[in-house]
Amino acid sequence: MLIVQKYGGTSVGDAGRIKNVARRVVNKYREGHQMMVVVSAMGDTTDDLIKLAREITNNPSPREMDMLMSTGEQVSIALLAIAIKSLGPDVVSLTGPQAGIKTESIHSRARITDIDNSRLIAELEAGKIIVVAGFQGLCDSGDITTLGRGGSDTTAVALAAAVKADMCEIYTDVDGVYTTDPRVVPDARKLDSITYDEMLELAHLGAAVLHPRAVECAKIYNIPLHVRCSFNDNPGTIVKEECDMEKNLIVTGVTCNKNVAKLGIFGVPDQPGVAYMVFKMLADRNISVDMIVQSSMRDGVNDISFTVSQDELRKSLETIEEIIKVVGATGYTHNAHVAMVSVVGAGMNGNPGVAAMTFGALADEEINIDMISTSDIKISCIIKNGEAEKAMNVLHRRFALAEATNCNCCA
Amino acid sequence: MLIVQKYGGTSVGDAGRIKNVARRVVNKYREGHQMMVVVSAMGDTTDDLIKLAREITNNPSPREMDMLMSTGEQVSIALLAIAIKSLGPDVVSLTGPQAGIKTESIHSRARITDIDNSRLIAELEAGKIIVVAGFQGLCDSGDITTLGRGGSDTTAVALAAAVKADMCEIYTDVDGVYTTDPRVVPDARKLDSITYDEMLELAHLGAAVLHPRAVECAKIYNIPLHVRCSFNDNPGTIVKEECDMEKNLIVTGVTCNKNVAKLGIFGVPDQPGVAYMVFKMLADRNISVDMIVQSSMRDGVNDISFTVSQDELRKSLETIEEIIKVVGATGYTHNAHVAMVSVVGAGMNGNPGVAAMTFGALADEEINIDMISTSDIKISCIIKNGEAEKAMNVLHRRFALAEATNCNCCA
Repeated sequence: MLIVQKYGGTSVGDAGRIKNVARRVVNKYREGHQMMVVVSAMGDTTDDLIKLAREITNNPSPREMDMLMSTGEQVSIALLAIAIKSLGPDVVSLTGPQAGIKTESIHSRARITDIDNSRLIAELEAGKIIVVAGFQGLCDSGDITTLGRGGSDTTAVALAAAVKADMCEIYTDVDGVYTTDPRVVPDARKLDSITYDEMLELAHLGAAVLHPRAVECAKIYNIPLHVRCSFNDNPGTIVKEECDMEKNLIVTGVTCNKNVAKLGIFGVPDQPGVAYMVFKMLADRNISVDMIVQSSMRDGVNDISFTVSQDELRKSLETIEEIIKVVGATGYTHNAHVAMVSVVGAGMNGNPGVAAMTFGALADEEINIDMISTSDIKISCIIKNGEAEKAMNVLHRRFALAEATNCNCCA
Repeated sequence: MLIVQKYGGTSVGDAGRIKNVARRVVNKYREGHQMMVVVSAMGDTTDDLIKLAREITNNPSPREMDMLMSTGEQVSIALLAIAIKSLGPDVVSLTGPQAGIKTESIHSRARITDIDNSRLIAELEAGKIIVVAGFQGLCDSGDITTLGRGGSDTTAVALAAAVKADMCEIYTDVDGVYTTDPRVVPDARKLDSITYDEMLELAHLGAAVLHPRAVECAKIYNIPLHVRCSFNDNPGTIVKEECDMEKNLIVTGVTCNKNVAKLGIFGVPDQPGVAYMVFKMLADRNISVDMIVQSSMRDGVNDISFTVSQDELRKSLETIEEIIKVVGATGYTHNAHVAMVSVVGAGMNGNPGVAAMTFGALADEEINIDMISTSDIKISCIIKNGEAEKAMNVLHRRFALAEATNCNCCA
């Protein structure tokens, strides 16, 4: 098999851990697999580099920040290659640019546009283990770019696609993907497998184990992902197109996002193009809007509610002041003390009972639902922040997620 | 003017010093000069990276060490570019490979083979200050190489040649080139100018201010060097083809190298090819031999003496054991307690009196000379280690080096 492995910053946090990763890689290699390894910067390196730049100015040039930050992964690949070589196998480390990773010409959050796999293929054919720096690439002007959040996961998946790998293993400090947050719901269960779409919803909804960019890329190129822990040999969770093992599961997981704030605009004139103007003005200010709910209760005016992340609340409120004047709305409200609890499952499509079960479970605990939004494979509810844990527990119980093989569609 | 400046690791040792360098560069730029700046890794970075690698193995792969070490300069260029940008001017940082620096495919001590100046010229024409990582380049296989000792000085001079710069300023923590070591001879005088050849001899003989590789490169491309201090605005020493100001000086400086050990082989058969075999065996073991003296006093056999650096003494002694067997010599001797004191000056060529003056000065202090070697512009003597300081002082005095304008040929 041709296996791509990705190790995060905690997994390569010091010399001892780097040696541990090297042993894991070499063991797989000696089983006869072709190996490509993607690594992040060691532990606190990224923070240390940012601190250095801040000592010079509070507003460093994005191009130069990418030049600076990309050294973190470069240190990791060199050290890991040194550790692998000391165990015997031939190995070569490659920076993102050397690995042929091309990106957009946008600094600090570039997207991968293409991978020239010629050197990767040549090194694999020469029998070498390849160690690649995650999170970075080269844009058309020959400058180093970084990929922003989730960049190293995305590097691993994109490389796996570029060399047609059989499997992409994402090593983290948790054992895999759980039915819900084990710190909140004690009988949360680790999933053996999950579909790309389910993983995407979970990732978007706040389960930090795998970045949605990486999942999207894996889905497009149909690369199976194995999310597992770098500190033990337990099997983790396989993310793939269809999950035979749990086909009968309607609901796969329950997730919660507390980094959310709710905003509402009252008395928006009910005219074509008004919603466009509202969200265009937010988008122009680079504010990501998540859930949007509009209801037309009264004649001629609408109320529009939406959610943003808490760190964008202040900027959103400033924008709303302008929006109200421009569109002629009557007022606005906001609430930062909310949480979004979601039920996710590829099987809920065509099963109308799931929504009712969700709302019923919350009602039984006297949890009031503020906003509702649904997709084919997800039901999200905005509730009071303080009731999030209670909601997660009751939903996890109601859909019997602690039991692996149950059909929970008709519980 | 097009000026290339090079700042060493001490000059960019922390955020404050980087901001100081940025101010110096921007001041020159605002005077109307085109600016290119070469920097080394910050202060202890290189040592820290080596330490990290040693925590993994005592025998790291040279290719991966270059991958690791080159991050040090990359951090420096990013931070300096951030600091320059915060003062206003347009700036771009470039790694060695991005600056078009091509090298041999030898790791940890590659030589520059060529510079593709297209990006450098384009960025200069766009009015940008260019900050380049010293000490590194790219070899034909697309791998990062480092240039070894003196690499950053050499980068600066080679870049100056590639863009036809008018001046290459080398900033260090000393004020320039002195007639001798000021810590040993209190009235040592800073030279206003010195020729390439004189500087080469001084550099080779242990004056650490400028690496001979850089001087050789400057001589070939006729790039004037200005060696000066990064912590003040004092003029330093200009290194150039001919020094009008001190044309009449026969002797420019006195220097001393204590990292030297003397070896002697007795009773070497006086046959053609024997000297070749002796020094071929040393060269094959990568031992650099400095001074070589052979004398034929007796019929049929010779004594050959030579010096090596102290850290290569052990390896040299092992090699000599073999040499004796192979060439059929009778024995050997060695002495690690020696020093090489040298008198350097482009004007001594054709002035036979200088050698006599040198030996006379040493004799007056009852300093015994063990070996003598001369070149066109240098007289070197091996003496007892403990007498080095006394020798430097008497020679500095005898050639009146503390006085700038004296003709010391007939003192």
